[in-house]
Amino acid sequence: MSLYAPISALTTAREVESGRLTAQDALNHSHLRIAQHDQYLKVFAQELPKWAVLEGHLSGISIGIKDVFDTYDMPTAYGSPIYNNHQPATDSALVTMLRNCGATIAGKTVTTEFAWFSPGKTRNPHNLKHTPGGSSSGSAAGVAAGFFPAAIGTQTGGSIIRPAAFCGVSGYKPSFRLFPTLGLKHFSWSLDTIGFFAARAEDNAFIAATCSNRDLMINHTDKSAPKIGIYKSSIDHIMSPAMEHSIEQLAARAEKSGAVVVDVNAPAPVEEARSAHAVIQDFEAVLALADERCRFSGQFSEKLALYLAEGQEITPAQYDEARRTANHARKASRQLFDDCDVLLLPSAPGSAPETLQSTGDSIFNRMWTLLGMPCVNIVSGFDNNGLPLGVQIIAPFGQDKKALQAAHWLECNSE
Amino acid sequence: MSLYAPISALTTAREVESGRLTAQDALNHSHLRIAQHDQYLKVFAQELPKWAVLEGHLSGISIGIKDVFDTYDMPTAYGSPIYNNHQPATDSALVTMLRNCGATIAGKTVTTEFAWFSPGKTRNPHNLKHTPGGSSSGSAAGVAAGFFPAAIGTQTGGSIIRPAAFCGVSGYKPSFRLFPTLGLKHFSWSLDTIGFFAARAEDNAFIAATCSNRDLMINHTDKSAPKIGIYKSSIDHIMSPAMEHSIEQLAARAEKSGAVVVDVNAPAPVEEARSAHAVIQDFEAVLALADERCRFSGQFSEKLALYLAEGQEITPAQYDEARRTANHARKASRQLFDDCDVLLLPSAPGSAPETLQSTGDSIFNRMWTLLGMPCVNIVSGFDNNGLPLGVQIIAPFGQDKKALQAAHWLECNSE
Repeated sequence: MSLYAPISALTTAREVESGRLTAQDALNHSHLRIAQHDQYLKVFAQELPKWAVLEGHLSGISIGIKDVFDTYDMPTAYGSPIYNNHQPATDSALVTMLRNCGATIAGKTVTTEFAWFSPGKTRNPHNLKHTPGGSSSGSAAGVAAGFFPAAIGTQTGGSIIRPAAFCGVSGYKPSFRLFPTLGLKHFSWSLDTIGFFAARAEDNAFIAATCSNRDLMINHTDKSAPKIGIYKSSIDHIMSPAMEHSIEQLAARAEKSGAVVVDVNAPAPVEEARSAHAVIQDFEAVLALADERCRFSGQFSEKLALYLAEGQEITPAQYDEARRTANHARKASRQLFDDCDVLLLPSAPGSAPETLQSTGDSIFNRMWTLLGMPCVNIVSGFDNNGLPLGVQIIAPFGQDKKALQAAHWLECNSE
Repeated sequence: MSLYAPISALTTAREVESGRLTAQDALNHSHLRIAQHDQYLKVFAQELPKWAVLEGHLSGISIGIKDVFDTYDMPTAYGSPIYNNHQPATDSALVTMLRNCGATIAGKTVTTEFAWFSPGKTRNPHNLKHTPGGSSSGSAAGVAAGFFPAAIGTQTGGSIIRPAAFCGVSGYKPSFRLFPTLGLKHFSWSLDTIGFFAARAEDNAFIAATCSNRDLMINHTDKSAPKIGIYKSSIDHIMSPAMEHSIEQLAARAEKSGAVVVDVNAPAPVEEARSAHAVIQDFEAVLALADERCRFSGQFSEKLALYLAEGQEITPAQYDEARRTANHARKASRQLFDDCDVLLLPSAPGSAPETLQSTGDSIFNRMWTLLGMPCVNIVSGFDNNGLPLGVQIIAPFGQDKKALQAAHWLECNSE
């Protein structure tokens, strides 16, 4: 297992609030851990800022910010040499929301190039030879390593849920547009979704609820078991045997603890929307990076340059058709919950691959980003190499609390 | 009438393409006009950049850019002293799209403060004592004055259609998200819509089609008359007598030219959504300007500071409810077109008010921004003081070409 362990944001906040721990001590603990271990894990994209204690419900909680969110007091490079030492004028909305609740910004965490696939330097805390996943690599690895109790990132394909799974932490991708993306460097504005990393579902729920004033906190008195739908689709053969086994075991433990578990088959319009994600993302990325492609074409990775050149071939008519297909799938996705409260499926094909040249495959994530539905990664087990396996709990659009609550129940009842 | 006259972008492009006019001469013509007259009209927010001829279908066409769009080579102040001399690193997507087609960026045009209501310095070319409308004040006035053949702006309430009407030019607010808002300083991301100003509908269609590669060009061989629905709603009593008369006359002329004209009554769910616009805009504006409110609270106009303080009282639950109401209205709005191709209604209660302290009332615009439907302003006549009156042609969501084509038909057949 890992040398590292995540810190609970909820416990930290309670300790600070009760006076058993000072906010300064909580921050010092994080800072020390970073000073000792970031040389191995390479979580940070920019030099650490000076940390100050702020007042509020998140006082004493340091939060890692994926380096695609603008910060007025720290350079922001979006994972690209084009923006080396770029200093934005204004904070992203979400960063200000967090500061306004007393959170201390730990620093800017490594992202892949423009939050796409070309990896950054971050390593997986469970095994330095393995990818932490991406694109929110530093945010996921930093929470896993106990560098900070929480972090924010973005998901356009699978960039919250996959790194959370690979690093063995809770990842929460909210419903599309529940949190503002202002001040985020967009890659695909119809897909880019803000998300959170923390130790467990209750910690993510606490951070998200506190900064947004939304009713997302876990209800700790509600012990009722969710009705879980095991999602069956045409790509299930891609799962590793360890992942398959892990889901079977998790389902069995959940049933034993009182949950109803049923199979849910992918409806045809949802399956058919699989290819729409790429068309929408590719078309929008060409526009999102239009200026950079004109003025700094030599500073893209070869892979991204090629990807954007191909994206330019997509016509507006093809893009509009993909958007219609996605809307059709969104409507059809309601029937997924006819017989269950939440869906359960892999967060990734397996555990983190042994490579630093790739961040893994987002095939189990892209559909749910396209549909805009809330997803929460939970640790379902570990493979033979001690690497975490993750599954995602998915609720209907707008019912984020249901996904968080079910993830919390599973974390409590199936270990 | 005005001393000034707009320049047709379509004609300019054809002249340049045919070689009868050089792109350089076309630009020189614009530049000279600005040098002579901007001291009176105050269209520009920033010093004029150096103009260069670029290659492409828009070669020789200078375009005014509302100073809420980032430009890498010109300061961008968003109409606020907070951003005096602020130099963005990157072009807005739409600015790059225009440059890539050979358009020359004329300069940054005056916007109200953060594209809200506190007026800038721009005057109405038809009468310097009257407002040009807002928030895209400089873009509308500059096109009306022949400073540049086209301009871009944004509409969150009525900031394209109203200034177009007050300045007597064609204004085109596309369907929501048809054009990317990347690199725009957002005020309310669910409402902020990019739009275009030009001499006539065919000019706006030409600019929008060319930069986006979308099928929006006017079909000049299609002479068929549209079925026009005169939209009747609970706010019609706000119309000035001149506006009322102008619409009656326009409808009579359209009928004479072969159009079918019917009355269309506002459906109840659409009327009920009227208040949802304010809730959505106010809630989002507080988040969009969260950092500025924390760090530069003294640099807001008193009016905007108060507005944002009130906006902060809106709860997430009220915001979510307003979004549901808007979605309900979007569905109900389909029945508006049961008996007609397009709707016709005032672009503003009357002509431009005699004031420089206000940009006029967006009451006839906000609903259509909320519903995301394409709107095109056409000049319907002039009032007794020689000020233009404008009406808007509205088509179903996504059917922008229908709105442009109907506006073109009316411009050709009802003068």
